[in-house]
Amino acid sequence: MYAFNFLTPARIREQYNTGITMMLDKGLGPSMVEDFLRIAGEHLDFVKFGWGIIGLCDRDIIREKIRIYRDYGVEAHPGGTLFEIAYIQGRFEEYLREAEKLGFRYLEISDGSIDLSREEKTRIIEDAIDHGFKVISEVGKKDPRKDRIIGLSERVELVKDDLRAGAEKVLMEAREGGQNIGVYDEKGDVKEDEVEYLIDHLPVEKLIWEAPQKNQQVYFILKIGPNVNLGNIPPEDVISLESMRRGLRGDTLGKVKL
Amino acid sequence: MYAFNFLTPARIREQYNTGITMMLDKGLGPSMVEDFLRIAGEHLDFVKFGWGIIGLCDRDIIREKIRIYRDYGVEAHPGGTLFEIAYIQGRFEEYLREAEKLGFRYLEISDGSIDLSREEKTRIIEDAIDHGFKVISEVGKKDPRKDRIIGLSERVELVKDDLRAGAEKVLMEAREGGQNIGVYDEKGDVKEDEVEYLIDHLPVEKLIWEAPQKNQQVYFILKIGPNVNLGNIPPEDVISLESMRRGLRGDTLGKVKL
Amino acid sequence: MYAFNFLTPARIREQYNTGITMMLDKGLGPSMVEDFLRIAGEHLDFVKFGWGIIGLCDRDIIREKIRIYRDYGVEAHPGGTLFEIAYIQGRFEEYLREAEKLGFRYLEISDGSIDLSREEKTRIIEDAIDHGFKVISEVGKKDPRKDRIIGLSERVELVKDDLRAGAEKVLMEAREGGQNIGVYDEKGDVKEDEVEYLIDHLPVEKLIWEAPQKNQQVYFILKIGPNVNLGNIPPEDVISLESMRRGLRGDTLGKVKL
Repeated sequence: MYAFNFLTPARIREQYNTGITMMLDKGLGPSMVEDFLRIAGEHLDFVKFGWGIIGLCDRDIIREKIRIYRDYGVEAHPGGTLFEIAYIQGRFEEYLREAEKLGFRYLEISDGSIDLSREEKTRIIEDAIDHGFKVISEVGKKDPRKDRIIGLSERVELVKDDLRAGAEKVLMEAREGGQNIGVYDEKGDVKEDEVEYLIDHLPVEKLIWEAPQKNQQVYFILKIGPNVNLGNIPPEDVISLESMRRGLRGDTLGKVKL
Repeated sequence: MYAFNFLTPARIREQYNTGITMMLDKGLGPSMVEDFLRIAGEHLDFVKFGWGIIGLCDRDIIREKIRIYRDYGVEAHPGGTLFEIAYIQGRFEEYLREAEKLGFRYLEISDGSIDLSREEKTRIIEDAIDHGFKVISEVGKKDPRKDRIIGLSERVELVKDDLRAGAEKVLMEAREGGQNIGVYDEKGDVKEDEVEYLIDHLPVEKLIWEAPQKNQQVYFILKIGPNVNLGNIPPEDVISLESMRRGLRGDTLGKVKL
Repeated sequence: MYAFNFLTPARIREQYNTGITMMLDKGLGPSMVEDFLRIAGEHLDFVKFGWGIIGLCDRDIIREKIRIYRDYGVEAHPGGTLFEIAYIQGRFEEYLREAEKLGFRYLEISDGSIDLSREEKTRIIEDAIDHGFKVISEVGKKDPRKDRIIGLSERVELVKDDLRAGAEKVLMEAREGGQNIGVYDEKGDVKEDEVEYLIDHLPVEKLIWEAPQKNQQVYFILKIGPNVNLGNIPPEDVISLESMRRGLRGDTLGKVKL
């Protein structure tokens, strides 16, 4: 039971499906993960191990972390960059085998730093699913210059392709910083017309918006609702985000419909 | 005994009363709190559980955290937002009972997101004191547009009201970020003339300045002295702040009188 | 063995000598240090205890932390500010004795907040070495106005002096923030012409660039190579930095030669 539970509005969601919170883990130690989950685990669906970070961590520790996260109902997945590296090296099969051995159930398929044709990306997503994984895909380029070239209508088509291929959700790229990329300008402010275009043309419940900054999280909660799917949340802001979803922080107090 | 203790100047203060450091806890795990306090606990007076965060945490864990903090001489209090939610829902009595059961000794009474008349706020503060709590009040609005409307002379009157009602200290609102609010401009720089006005018209030892950014902490230490009361300090900066109070960091070295 | 180790390129370096990563510790608790090192220790050479922070921490805890760091092959050293305070108080001998008792093997000799003649600094470095310490010196002033006065050619001479005196490495001052100081402008962007001048006139393998911000780390890796020496890395970014050194993050993927 929560402290002051008579003041806490419920948020009804289907875990891993609606109202998703996905955290970015840049290399937390296992004891810290466990301690953190004791207090915050309930408010979390997914954890992304950032880019190639787990390629620099001991296998046993990664296994241990995946298990700890799962004990608290949180699914960890390796970031997309590691997949991209495996793919361009022609080691996608090995990548899938290792992911399975380590205990991952979800994979991220992205082309943020490499070039994939639409057909190729579709085939890869289908392949991962055939191997028993659930797939979260990502749309967007990590290089702001390349990212800007993708028009809105093209972005919509790319998302639709991934969903048709079987991706559970599609991440809208914003990197760790959330500035000068995707739907954010150089200050990290939301380009509202672009978000509106995407919402109008896509099933919003299938999108996960990377939104590392607080003002971005507030925007999406007020725009789309408390059950918007958000990603790249820093660990220290996970409970803060949940409080905003439920109108328990000044920014959204009295403004959300639960 | 401190490492290199022959270099550490003493700072004489009365705990909970002068030279206060108040930290913002956004949901630290209990083991991390204990580990942190082993090294930093001595330099801390109060911890504010941010806004509605504890309404999303297990009661037993909150109880445990309050106890750990107290073992190290640190008093935790629930943030003002949770009080505001209870009050507008007509559940202030329940709020007081739950706070007592959880083990809180201090409460924060604020109207950052709701409207309270001056008489109402006074009555609430008196009521909380009657129930055996010590009260830290807060003056300021969380919405920058509303906050700007409060003139300096009105701000002075609001602080005086709260003190007359029995508040131990009054927090000067600056939120987690410390930008575009209260005495800070959009870049987080201090509006010095406003601070000077407030200092001239109020008992400075009764004020706690929310000062999350380092440049703000440096400003107040140099302006008011090493025993200025400061709040909303991020956990990782607690010892840093103490080092600046004592002239043990470049920014204040040779510039503080202890 | 690393997770996905078949994707992890090796980085050949000589610990404490090439490809150095130096982290800034602002007061981590001992359990958190141990937990952190389990996952990240391998990617770390040095830890700097920031400015006068250990002068505010219990001796036994500092001893414990030094030992934990060393168990993982990481050498901790007290920041330069504490040395400067000892020196201006005429207690340099005591400083050396206490550093030895606590278990430090490396010292930082700086004049960021005090004035030392070139001869004086040389003598101090030699003295510390005579006492059995290894020395990392620092060049640069903490006050941006004073720092700007040091011309590039003078900066080169100061570095050469310190190396002649026996310093293992020389830190290029950038403080915790990395803005408006040394080779960084007010936004934290690198002044590329200044870096190029320094590289042209100094042995780059002897320099440690303080580079707290990600864009700064990326710049130096792409400019100087994966084995550039970098300092003032926040704990949460240690593995991220290693991933960039090895081309395992979008920013450097396909751009580093290992």
